Amino acid sequence: MNIEMIDAAAARLNGIARRTPLLYAPALDAIAGRRVLVKPECLQQTGSFKFRGAYSALSAMDAETRARGILAYSSGNHAQGVARAAQIFDCPAVILMPADAPRAKIEGTRSYGAEVITYDRASESREAIGARLAKERGLTLVRPYDEPQVIAGQGTTGLEIAEQAAKMDITRAEVLVCCGGGGLTAGIALACAARAPGLRVRPVEPEGYDDTARSLQSGTREGNATEAGGLCDAILTPQPGEITFPINARLCGPGIVVSEEEALRAMAMAFRHLKVVAEPGGAVALAAALFHGQEIENEVAVCTVSGGNVDVATFARALEYA
Amino acid sequence: MNIEMIDAAAARLNGIARRTPLLYAPALDAIAGRRVLVKPECLQQTGSFKFRGAYSALSAMDAETRARGILAYSSGNHAQGVARAAQIFDCPAVILMPADAPRAKIEGTRSYGAEVITYDRASESREAIGARLAKERGLTLVRPYDEPQVIAGQGTTGLEIAEQAAKMDITRAEVLVCCGGGGLTAGIALACAARAPGLRVRPVEPEGYDDTARSLQSGTREGNATEAGGLCDAILTPQPGEITFPINARLCGPGIVVSEEEALRAMAMAFRHLKVVAEPGGAVALAAALFHGQEIENEVAVCTVSGGNVDVATFARALEYA
Repeated sequence: MNIEMIDAAAARLNGIARRTPLLYAPALDAIAGRRVLVKPECLQQTGSFKFRGAYSALSAMDAETRARGILAYSSGNHAQGVARAAQIFDCPAVILMPADAPRAKIEGTRSYGAEVITYDRASESREAIGARLAKERGLTLVRPYDEPQVIAGQGTTGLEIAEQAAKMDITRAEVLVCCGGGGLTAGIALACAARAPGLRVRPVEPEGYDDTARSLQSGTREGNATEAGGLCDAILTPQPGEITFPINARLCGPGIVVSEEEALRAMAMAFRHLKVVAEPGGAVALAAALFHGQEIENEVAVCTVSGGNVDVATFARALEYA
Repeated sequence: MNIEMIDAAAARLNGIARRTPLLYAPALDAIAGRRVLVKPECLQQTGSFKFRGAYSALSAMDAETRARGILAYSSGNHAQGVARAAQIFDCPAVILMPADAPRAKIEGTRSYGAEVITYDRASESREAIGARLAKERGLTLVRPYDEPQVIAGQGTTGLEIAEQAAKMDITRAEVLVCCGGGGLTAGIALACAARAPGLRVRPVEPEGYDDTARSLQSGTREGNATEAGGLCDAILTPQPGEITFPINARLCGPGIVVSEEEALRAMAMAFRHLKVVAEPGGAVALAAALFHGQEIENEVAVCTVSGGNVDVATFARALEYA
C-alpha cells in the first residue's frame, strides 16, 4: 500500500465518486469546545464511503474477470457500494447479506440491480455459501477492507480532507474516523501521512466493539466477544484486518470508544446543525468530537460521517435527543 | 439587476458561503421518470440559501451603516441568515419573528448572537414595531427578497448550478426553485439566463400559497388569501415582490403547485435517497420533480432543496412516508 495507489484510485474515481464538502456549524464548535469539521460521506453515492472502495476495486480489475461477476459479503454499506459499482460497469453482482440487516440496506442493494441472498447469521456460514457460489458462477470476491484497491479507494477521502483542510489554512488536526475493519481508517491515514502530516488519524468505535482500540494498545490484533446485535451495524467486525491493522498501528493515535447513546445524540446534532442524515455507525466519530473532547489533543477535529443508511425507527430514536 | 451584480456577490461570498454539491440518486430518477439533480442548500451555512443573500447585502453596505446594526423580519431562514452574517461582521442584529415560528428557527437565530423579538401575527404589526426600533436604534432593514443585493446573493446559487450542470454536459434542463417572495427564483433565473440559457427556471409553491403561479398566468401581482398557517412556513409570502416579479415574469416558465403531503413525501425521499434534511418549504421543488412530472418539459430536472430548518415533530411526520 502506498500513496501512488491512492492517487491512481482518485484518478479512476474522478467524476464518478462525489467530492463531499467539509461542513461545520458554530453550535457544534460550542458543544465540542474546539473547531469541528465534518466530512459527510453519507452524501456519497449509495449513502456511504464504501462506494469509493468498491468502485476502486472493480475499476482496477481486468474486464474479463469483472464481466464474470462480483461477489460480496456485507451487512449493507459495502453491499450497496459494490452493487452500484457493478451497475455502472454493467456486470453481475451477488451480495450475501445477513437476514437481520437493516431493511433500508437490503432494499438499497436490490435497487442497484444486485442479486441479494440472505443468510441466518446464527446457523449459516456466509463463507461456505460464498465459496460455493463463487465456484459455480465464476464470481470474484471483493473484500470489504482487507483488499489493497479497496483501501486505496477509501483513501481518496483522505486526499480530499488534506486538500480541503489546507484550503482552510488548517495544518494540524486530529482526524476522527469511524472504524470497523479499518479500511477507511487506513486509507485516510496513508493519505494524510503523505499529504498533510500534521493531520493525525484517531479510530473511533462503539463500546463492546472496540477491537481496534484494544489492538492498538496491545500491539496485536484483538477480537470482539460478538459481531452482531449492536446498533452500529456498519462498523461491527470480528477483529482488525490483516492488511489494515499494521498500517493503522504505524500511523494512528489511540482509539476512542463511544457509547450507543452518544452515537444517537451525535445523529441528532447532525440532523439539527448540519442537515445531514447519519446512521449510528457513521456518527461515532462526531460523537467522539462532541462528547470525548478530553481525549482529543488538537484544537481542530475533523470527523468523518461515514454513512447515512439508517432505518426510520432507528432515526426516530435519535431524534428524541434533538 | 444584472449578472455583474451576481458575479460581484459571488466574489464577496467566496470562501464564506458554502459551494453546495449537485446530488443525485438512481432511485429518484426512477420515481421521476427523468434525471433529477438536487442542489441541497440545506447544507448551506445556517441551513438555508438565505445566508447567501444576507451576507451579500451586509458585505455591500458601508461599514458605518452596518456597525449601527441590522434589522430583519422573518419567520426563520432569512432571520438566521442575517443573524449569522451580522455575527461574521460583528455588528448588532435585531430580528422580529412571529411567536409561532418553528422553535428550531427561533433558537437557531438566537444561537448566532442576534436579539430576537417575537410578536403576535394576529394582533401586532411587525412593520410598526420594526419602524420604531429602526428609528430608536439607527438600525438598517435588510428585506428578505425585494432588495437587489439580496437577489444578487441568492443568484450565486444559480451561478453554481450553471457551472455544475456544464461540467456534467447538461445544457438543457428545467430548474425547479422553491418560491416564496421570489428572490431565489429571480437570482437563479438571472444567473441561468446569462450563463446557461438552456436552463429554464420554474417556480414551485405549495397549494393555497400559489401567488407567483397565478401572477405569472395573469401577468400582474396576485395575493394569497392568507399568509400564515401552512406547513411550508419558509415560503409563505403575501404576494410576489415588486423587484422580483418582473424578473420572474420575463425569465421563468409557468409555476408548479404541489400539496403539503407531496412536500412531506419529498422530504422522506430526500432522507432515504440523498441523506439530507429538507424542511417542507424546502422540499416543494423536489416534490414537483417527483410527483408532477407531466408538467415538466425537459429530460433533466434540477431541484433546489432550499432549506432544512425543520422541527422534530414535522420531520417525524415526513418519515411516515419513508
